[in-house]
Amino acid sequence: MSFLSRSEYDRGVNTFSPEGRLFQVEYAIEAIKLGSTAIGICTKEGVILVVEKRVTSPLVDPSSIEKLLEIDSHMGCAMSGLTADARTLVDHARTEAQGHWFTYNERIPIESNVNAIADLALDFSDSDRKKKTMSRPFGVALLVGGVDPWDGPVLFNTDPSGTFTKYAACAIGSAQEGATSMLQEQYNKDMTLKEAEILALTTLRQVMEEKLSKINIEVGVIPASTARFHTYTAEELDDVISRLPAPTLPTLTSAGTGQ
Amino acid sequence: MSFLSRSEYDRGVNTFSPEGRLFQVEYAIEAIKLGSTAIGICTKEGVILVVEKRVTSPLVDPSSIEKLLEIDSHMGCAMSGLTADARTLVDHARTEAQGHWFTYNERIPIESNVNAIADLALDFSDSDRKKKTMSRPFGVALLVGGVDPWDGPVLFNTDPSGTFTKYAACAIGSAQEGATSMLQEQYNKDMTLKEAEILALTTLRQVMEEKLSKINIEVGVIPASTARFHTYTAEELDDVISRLPAPTLPTLTSAGTGQ
Amino acid sequence: MSFLSRSEYDRGVNTFSPEGRLFQVEYAIEAIKLGSTAIGICTKEGVILVVEKRVTSPLVDPSSIEKLLEIDSHMGCAMSGLTADARTLVDHARTEAQGHWFTYNERIPIESNVNAIADLALDFSDSDRKKKTMSRPFGVALLVGGVDPWDGPVLFNTDPSGTFTKYAACAIGSAQEGATSMLQEQYNKDMTLKEAEILALTTLRQVMEEKLSKINIEVGVIPASTARFHTYTAEELDDVISRLPAPTLPTLTSAGTGQ
Amino acid sequence: MSFLSRSEYDRGVNTFSPEGRLFQVEYAIEAIKLGSTAIGICTKEGVILVVEKRVTSPLVDPSSIEKLLEIDSHMGCAMSGLTADARTLVDHARTEAQGHWFTYNERIPIESNVNAIADLALDFSDSDRKKKTMSRPFGVALLVGGVDPWDGPVLFNTDPSGTFTKYAACAIGSAQEGATSMLQEQYNKDMTLKEAEILALTTLRQVMEEKLSKINIEVGVIPASTARFHTYTAEELDDVISRLPAPTLPTLTSAGTGQ
Amino acid sequence: MSFLSRSEYDRGVNTFSPEGRLFQVEYAIEAIKLGSTAIGICTKEGVILVVEKRVTSPLVDPSSIEKLLEIDSHMGCAMSGLTADARTLVDHARTEAQGHWFTYNERIPIESNVNAIADLALDFSDSDRKKKTMSRPFGVALLVGGVDPWDGPVLFNTDPSGTFTKYAACAIGSAQEGATSMLQEQYNKDMTLKEAEILALTTLRQVMEEKLSKINIEVGVIPASTARFHTYTAEELDDVISRLPAPTLPTLTSAGTGQ
Amino acid sequence: MSFLSRSEYDRGVNTFSPEGRLFQVEYAIEAIKLGSTAIGICTKEGVILVVEKRVTSPLVDPSSIEKLLEIDSHMGCAMSGLTADARTLVDHARTEAQGHWFTYNERIPIESNVNAIADLALDFSDSDRKKKTMSRPFGVALLVGGVDPWDGPVLFNTDPSGTFTKYAACAIGSAQEGATSMLQEQYNKDMTLKEAEILALTTLRQVMEEKLSKINIEVGVIPASTARFHTYTAEELDDVISRLPAPTLPTLTSAGTGQ
Amino acid sequence: MSFLSRSEYDRGVNTFSPEGRLFQVEYAIEAIKLGSTAIGICTKEGVILVVEKRVTSPLVDPSSIEKLLEIDSHMGCAMSGLTADARTLVDHARTEAQGHWFTYNERIPIESNVNAIADLALDFSDSDRKKKTMSRPFGVALLVGGVDPWDGPVLFNTDPSGTFTKYAACAIGSAQEGATSMLQEQYNKDMTLKEAEILALTTLRQVMEEKLSKINIEVGVIPASTARFHTYTAEELDDVISRLPAPTLPTLTSAGTGQ
Repeated sequence: MSFLSRSEYDRGVNTFSPEGRLFQVEYAIEAIKLGSTAIGICTKEGVILVVEKRVTSPLVDPSSIEKLLEIDSHMGCAMSGLTADARTLVDHARTEAQGHWFTYNERIPIESNVNAIADLALDFSDSDRKKKTMSRPFGVALLVGGVDPWDGPVLFNTDPSGTFTKYAACAIGSAQEGATSMLQEQYNKDMTLKEAEILALTTLRQVMEEKLSKINIEVGVIPASTARFHTYTAEELDDVISRLPAPTLPTLTSAGTGQ
Repeated sequence: MSFLSRSEYDRGVNTFSPEGRLFQVEYAIEAIKLGSTAIGICTKEGVILVVEKRVTSPLVDPSSIEKLLEIDSHMGCAMSGLTADARTLVDHARTEAQGHWFTYNERIPIESNVNAIADLALDFSDSDRKKKTMSRPFGVALLVGGVDPWDGPVLFNTDPSGTFTKYAACAIGSAQEGATSMLQEQYNKDMTLKEAEILALTTLRQVMEEKLSKINIEVGVIPASTARFHTYTAEELDDVISRLPAPTLPTLTSAGTGQ
Repeated sequence: MSFLSRSEYDRGVNTFSPEGRLFQVEYAIEAIKLGSTAIGICTKEGVILVVEKRVTSPLVDPSSIEKLLEIDSHMGCAMSGLTADARTLVDHARTEAQGHWFTYNERIPIESNVNAIADLALDFSDSDRKKKTMSRPFGVALLVGGVDPWDGPVLFNTDPSGTFTKYAACAIGSAQEGATSMLQEQYNKDMTLKEAEILALTTLRQVMEEKLSKINIEVGVIPASTARFHTYTAEELDDVISRLPAPTLPTLTSAGTGQ
Repeated sequence: MSFLSRSEYDRGVNTFSPEGRLFQVEYAIEAIKLGSTAIGICTKEGVILVVEKRVTSPLVDPSSIEKLLEIDSHMGCAMSGLTADARTLVDHARTEAQGHWFTYNERIPIESNVNAIADLALDFSDSDRKKKTMSRPFGVALLVGGVDPWDGPVLFNTDPSGTFTKYAACAIGSAQEGATSMLQEQYNKDMTLKEAEILALTTLRQVMEEKLSKINIEVGVIPASTARFHTYTAEELDDVISRLPAPTLPTLTSAGTGQ
Repeated sequence: MSFLSRSEYDRGVNTFSPEGRLFQVEYAIEAIKLGSTAIGICTKEGVILVVEKRVTSPLVDPSSIEKLLEIDSHMGCAMSGLTADARTLVDHARTEAQGHWFTYNERIPIESNVNAIADLALDFSDSDRKKKTMSRPFGVALLVGGVDPWDGPVLFNTDPSGTFTKYAACAIGSAQEGATSMLQEQYNKDMTLKEAEILALTTLRQVMEEKLSKINIEVGVIPASTARFHTYTAEELDDVISRLPAPTLPTLTSAGTGQ
Repeated sequence: MSFLSRSEYDRGVNTFSPEGRLFQVEYAIEAIKLGSTAIGICTKEGVILVVEKRVTSPLVDPSSIEKLLEIDSHMGCAMSGLTADARTLVDHARTEAQGHWFTYNERIPIESNVNAIADLALDFSDSDRKKKTMSRPFGVALLVGGVDPWDGPVLFNTDPSGTFTKYAACAIGSAQEGATSMLQEQYNKDMTLKEAEILALTTLRQVMEEKLSKINIEVGVIPASTARFHTYTAEELDDVISRLPAPTLPTLTSAGTGQ
Repeated sequence: MSFLSRSEYDRGVNTFSPEGRLFQVEYAIEAIKLGSTAIGICTKEGVILVVEKRVTSPLVDPSSIEKLLEIDSHMGCAMSGLTADARTLVDHARTEAQGHWFTYNERIPIESNVNAIADLALDFSDSDRKKKTMSRPFGVALLVGGVDPWDGPVLFNTDPSGTFTKYAACAIGSAQEGATSMLQEQYNKDMTLKEAEILALTTLRQVMEEKLSKINIEVGVIPASTARFHTYTAEELDDVISRLPAPTLPTLTSAGTGQ
């Protein structure tokens, strides 16, 4: 199909193309491919989330670029795509989590919370509802990790179509492809949380254009032992970076060629 | 009619073409042809539902790809098409089923529940109603099977046009055509539930691109004896796969050529 | 007028063309011409309704293809066109009939009920009203027959334009033309209900592509003597088919050439 | 102005063209020119209304084609154009008439009732009001005749623009032009009601394609003496047709050439 | 600017063109130029309003073509343009006048009433308000004349843009230009009401295509002495026509050339 | 950018162009350049406002062309652009002023009132609010002058973008450019109110096409001594015109060339 | 992608392009590049904000061009872009700040206030909410500086996409690029507030087309010692301008070339 005729379908945010596709949702997924890379790994000992921060200027305070957000004490998420859209989804997830705690006096199951995020993502065109919605798909993907009260450590990925999937390890953002193939090669389900931390960071180091430093990454962890979301301090970042093995290959920056 | 002029009608989700067709509904049906294959068979002893799961990466947890869903204790469904749309329809079906149970203290008749799903599918453009609706057709087909309190085992198929039809055996999704012709050849109304289980799985094996395994399928059954929906465990899947007869033909993957 | 310029007017569902036509309503009428054939005949002894069922697969349960529906105990209808639209209209007609019974303790006059159906068909663009409406014309025609409490046996035809007309005998659907001319030749107002039954079925046999059988037709009758709508059982269908005279002409399938 | 550029203005139902015209209203007037012919004559002794009924098939019950409708006991109307639209306008007129009777215990003045019809016709785009309205002009013209409580026999014509005009004699529908010129030649304000009846019917006979018979016309009369609307029975129609003078000219069927 | 590009702006009823013009309002003003001519003259002794009535057929009752309307006992108006739109504006003006009388026990000041008409004309796109409004500009101009309780005789002109202006003498409609230049030549502010009556009618005679007669004109007067709006009877029209001086020039019909 | 492509953006009243411009607001500003010229000068002794009135016909009563309007006893405004839009803004400003007086028992600060006008101008697309708004920008500029209770004499200019600016002297309308450069040359902040009156009128005389007379101008003054808005009577106009110095240059009519 | 096809996506304010971009938001960012330059620097001793004022005419009162606005006693902002849009955002920020003070009896945290501004910016298309919103992105960027009750001096930048970022030093407006590179060269985080004042002003002097003077700039400061927003008086401006070092380079006016 030529470009011109395709454009006929693009404008209606909620219209099927003759092939049965929803273009606006697919374009929103493109917005994520413009975003910074985030990686999550789930082990029996807990979940690790690492994100690249694109610090565009030395005058920017890197701490104000939040790509890693706590949802509840036992879960958090890494984002890629439109920052402001992520804020809306995470605000919703936090409200759901607090509501569950208040009503049942227990932490919300992770999947239940992810389901609420996906429902909001699907509702984007449902302008009559009370919930906070938008008139276009949300241009953001989230890696939601946490220690479920019943199932233990879990990792989910949500996308603009309102779909969510459970992963052992997952990468989103501009370097999704390169990072995913590294994870597939090196992940094994019996790795320790420490090994996962090293795998996540070496993978991120491979795909980042800039040299990985405590300034341009964020790391979050939810250990099964404590079931509490924790963001690494500058000291912890220094420590883990110093522990990374030396790169064995010439750096492969899939983001670099793409942009 | 040329492509360009057809596009004139496509954009209005609820507009007839000069031939009396509703394109948006037909395109939504195309969305189903992009989906994974699902097969249902109804026998006197009960209903069997089998679905293909497309596990795109070894890092994905296959259990989080739910293509087979319980609606009430005596009925369930297999889906093909947009996952998030199916969630909305199934949530509605569950509410209807619980409401019936609460009001009449009996299980909801299957056809009555399927009627409610089809009404919601038809209402997609009716933005003023209280029910949860969308501004486009639902891009999903469901195979709803169950043991009706009065009629015994039944199997229904619903599609985006708001139509529902009762079937003895039915296939939906990308391999609908190939699977349907196999079912027509081999189905007989006196087959046992065990025979139906083997027929459904050998049919699915024929049309799947990947080798059928306990990872990439789901099987659900509602036996007339118990009238309870049951999803096969990994052990049960292993067991039934081991019982499948050896394939007699070179594998025919209708999905493989189509995609 | 060329095709392109005509398309300028098509998109507005409620817009006149320069010739004073409402295209969307005319296209909805086209949707009926894609539908299965239905025939109704009104005699002094009662009304007979026969419909073709297009059973597209041997796996379909023909009983779930409902083309003949009871509206109240003294009236019913045969439909042609979009099944889901018919369901909406018939639900409305049933509510009107029950309301009348509840309020006046008498059966609703047939014309009054048909008027209510036609009013709903006309209201399709009236989105602010409480009644269940749609944002496009209803793509369905109904043959409504019954025994009126005052006027005795009557037969009405409603179409997407909100018009209804009283007929002695009428055919709708893809073979409307061929069936109508047969009815015009052979109908006489003094025929018995038995003769009407034979006329309706031989006419339907003429225009159906498939061989007429108890699987692919439905027959309903409202005799003046009982004033109760009755759908033929399989045995009654077998009986009446066996009584049909042998076809005298090579079968004329107007649907066959058209599709 | 070329056709293409004109179409730019047509789609907005309530938009002026550069020449200050409202196309949608003019196109609705075209819808009337597709309709059957109706003729009304007002004399000092009362008002006579005659309409052509287009009985498209011998199977249609002509009595169900209502082109002549009572509004209140002292007034009625003949219509040309979209039947379903006329039903909406006449329902509104009847409600107004009953409301007046209920409130003031006197028959509604004819002009007051016609004003209410014209206001509804003008309001077609006023979607927020409580009255029953449409989102396009009403494609119908009415000849409203009656015996006013104060002014005696009067005849009004309303059109889709919301304008109404008082006439001594008037024709609407496909043969409006030919019938009007006959009326202008032969009408005189001192003619009796009997003479008007003959004039109306001979005029209609001139412009009808089919031979005029009691099947394909309706005649209504509101005599000043009784001030009660009366529709002719079959016997009265036979009687008046038998009294018509033989046609003196070869029949001029303006509808025939136009269609 | 070419025609095609201009059309880009025309469709939005409330959109500025690049030159800062509101086309829909200008096109509504064109609608007035298609209307019949109306002339008003204000003198110290009172206001005179004369209008042309276009009686298109001898069968029309000229009294039902109302181009001259009373608003309150001390004021009235002459209209040119769409009749049905004028009815809406005059209904609003009458309600305002009665409201003022009811609240303050005095006649409404003319300018205050004209302001209310102009506000309604401006509000055409303000669909949320309680007042009766339209979704396009009103295609009508009014000459509102009356004897103000404080200011004495006054004459106002309102147009579709919501502007109103006070005039000594004014003409609107198809012959506005020709009539205005005659008025400019011959008006003087000290003329008597009788002289104004003759000037208005001779001006109208000049620009009318048909011969001026008591059938095709209406004359209204509000003398300062009585402050009561009075429409001329047939006898008064005969009288004033007989008093008109013989035409001195070959008749100049500006409408004739324009149409 | 070519004309055609620009038009793509024009239609959405509230859409940015690729250059970050809001065309509809810029076109509304063009509407002001079609308007008559208004000039305001602020001195320590008070504010003077002068406006040109375009009296298009000797039959128009110039007093009904109001270009100079009182807002409250201590402030007024001169307008240029669409008269009816100005009426809406000034009505709003008057209500704000009265509300302040009623609530605080003091005159409203001028800037606070101008802020309210600008907020309404900005709100044009905010259709849900209770205030009286429009669906396009207001096509009018106002020169608001007054004696502020705290700041003394002040002069503000508001435009369709919702911006307001404080000026020592300012001109708006078709001759804005020529008048502004004259004001820049000759204004000094220590001039007396009498000198400002002469400067404003000689500037207006320079740019008016017609000869300045008491008929075609309005003058308003708010002296600091009284803080009361006063419009010049005919005598005061005669007086000030007689005091104007003889023109020293051949008249420069910037409006003349523009129109 | 060519210009024409891009325009297909531009018109929907909330539509993704095939590349995943939101054009209307990007165009709104262009609106800021047309605005005057503003610079903010954050030091341990406090925050300094400086803005260019474009005084287009000597008759304008520069004090009425407010580019520097107090939000609460401990915070303020500098703006670039559409003035009227900034007013709406700042009104919202002030209400939030007062609400916090009233509810918690403490000053609002700066980031919390900036979050509220960004939420409103994101909500532009959310027409159902109670907050004051618009139907297009806000065409304005704000530099929000203040002394946080807990974090001390902070500086944020918000843009039309609803994103906010914390900066050590930041420039917005037409000279953003040139000013940013100067700030990057010369900023160090240990500089005193006096040094920051000189750096901000020398940077602004470099990029302004006009000679920097007390007329065409505004300076605001929030010292950590007092935590009170203070706008410089004319004397303070004179003083600081006199203390500026002589320019060392030929002036680089990035705005000059751009406009």
